[in-house]
Amino acid sequence: MNASVATADYLSRTAYGIEQALKTSIPQEWHIPARLREAMMYSLEAGGKRLRPILVLAAAEAVKNESDSYTLAMPVACAIEMIHTYSLIHDDLPAMDNDDFRRGKPTSHKVFGEAMAILAGDGLLSHAFYAVSQAAALGVPTDVAMAIVSDLARLSGVSGMVGGQAADILGEQGVTSITELEYIHLHKTSDLIVFAVTAGARIGGATRDQLAALEQFARKLGLAFQVQDDILDLIGDESKLGKPVQSDVQQRKVTYPYIIGMEQSLELVGRLTMESKEALKQANLVMPEKLLSIADYLMNRDH
Amino acid sequence: MNASVATADYLSRTAYGIEQALKTSIPQEWHIPARLREAMMYSLEAGGKRLRPILVLAAAEAVKNESDSYTLAMPVACAIEMIHTYSLIHDDLPAMDNDDFRRGKPTSHKVFGEAMAILAGDGLLSHAFYAVSQAAALGVPTDVAMAIVSDLARLSGVSGMVGGQAADILGEQGVTSITELEYIHLHKTSDLIVFAVTAGARIGGATRDQLAALEQFARKLGLAFQVQDDILDLIGDESKLGKPVQSDVQQRKVTYPYIIGMEQSLELVGRLTMESKEALKQANLVMPEKLLSIADYLMNRDH
Repeated sequence: MNASVATADYLSRTAYGIEQALKTSIPQEWHIPARLREAMMYSLEAGGKRLRPILVLAAAEAVKNESDSYTLAMPVACAIEMIHTYSLIHDDLPAMDNDDFRRGKPTSHKVFGEAMAILAGDGLLSHAFYAVSQAAALGVPTDVAMAIVSDLARLSGVSGMVGGQAADILGEQGVTSITELEYIHLHKTSDLIVFAVTAGARIGGATRDQLAALEQFARKLGLAFQVQDDILDLIGDESKLGKPVQSDVQQRKVTYPYIIGMEQSLELVGRLTMESKEALKQANLVMPEKLLSIADYLMNRDH
Repeated sequence: MNASVATADYLSRTAYGIEQALKTSIPQEWHIPARLREAMMYSLEAGGKRLRPILVLAAAEAVKNESDSYTLAMPVACAIEMIHTYSLIHDDLPAMDNDDFRRGKPTSHKVFGEAMAILAGDGLLSHAFYAVSQAAALGVPTDVAMAIVSDLARLSGVSGMVGGQAADILGEQGVTSITELEYIHLHKTSDLIVFAVTAGARIGGATRDQLAALEQFARKLGLAFQVQDDILDLIGDESKLGKPVQSDVQQRKVTYPYIIGMEQSLELVGRLTMESKEALKQANLVMPEKLLSIADYLMNRDH
């Protein structure tokens, strides 16, 4: 098995484990309106790469390569997927990007109506924090779990992903500087990648120096991921992406290829990936291999 | 000063303190799109009774009557007001209740547009959990703060307020049984009151027995509060309510007067208030007076 096949195999096995955990992440015994539960599960089960939760698990194991790292990190892995999923549901709404399809399936508001889509998003956002509290119940030290609550609120909230999304919306109204674009990418995408890696590392028991190096790794990786996304939107394969290409152009989105050109964008992905791998070396991890192979995989992906 | 004047005075002084704390609850040094910050502050500063945060502070002081109870409970008081405010912003959206005015001011989406209103709501919801993490930073024991995170996620989330709101939306589509109505009221309103009282009590250092009694107190109080709201919507004074009367009727909302009649609804408010005060006695608090006077005040309010 060559390296890229081994990575693809690792990613799909781990994604499967996460999907099994997501199925039971909203307790069956909770009395919830059936339609709301259905709407939340519809989007949680809609597939995707599960990149963010995989990074939580891989980072926990990179710091402490024992089986309890995986188990203890799983609730937080589910939490970040809930956050990512809620953001997609709300982004797709008619008042936002007005997308009818996501990953080849009708978007939440097309199936459940706008009101239920808004509530499914609010529900997943709230439930992510419940999932983190379950990590504490499983055995993650309470001070570590509380640091993760604080990071999640900050990096997915107003100074993080929500702030990036707001800047993006405002950008469509005419702001197109490279500074604004960097703000959008730093916060809209990269902040959740930083959360995933550092939260996993915290659960693995990372030192302060390891956390700092891993934050650098994740920051560069997250930016590379978003620039690559912009590139694939222009030149990708519609059937692999599960959405129409050039949708950014149609929605007049500010992207890297639009601002600095395609050639420089491709170069930028390569440089950021290299820098992320440099940072990873500085972290002195017991098992960096999975994180390293994820970085390589992302640079070479076509969807 | 008679009792009801003293209570009104206590409530307005405490609301003022909460409003001062809310002003600085989103750190000034955070780099956030100005329009997003403005939208969040617009709704946070739109007034209202501040009942939920007042209950957090009053419950903390009821259990432990010292000045640090007030200080330590303030971040959680701000958190519950953020949750309440986000729920109003999202409820007012065109896809939900489609309200143009709230407390006499244009609603968020009328001022900032729908996309920014959705994001302001998401931002406030996320930031509430950051505020709880700040309580831990201030000195609330980490295990107490983590229990509050878990409670907040549960009681404001899918098995709590969001679930109640979903049932309400589904109810407008034809479900009108008393069981459904009770589910809506229990979760849409009462769960946040339960959170406010028990979170404050946890910070004050409540015993398990005290928490159980206070949960009963809050549950009854929350139901009384919602039935009273339904009544005021029918027979209240528009200028005092800050919104048109009979809006529930126009929106075909399921309400207590609609299901059991006005006379029985008025009786129900009285009975629930009495039962809540009974439960309060069982809690054996060092200073129950404020909670008691809030219960009396709510039963007699006209807005």
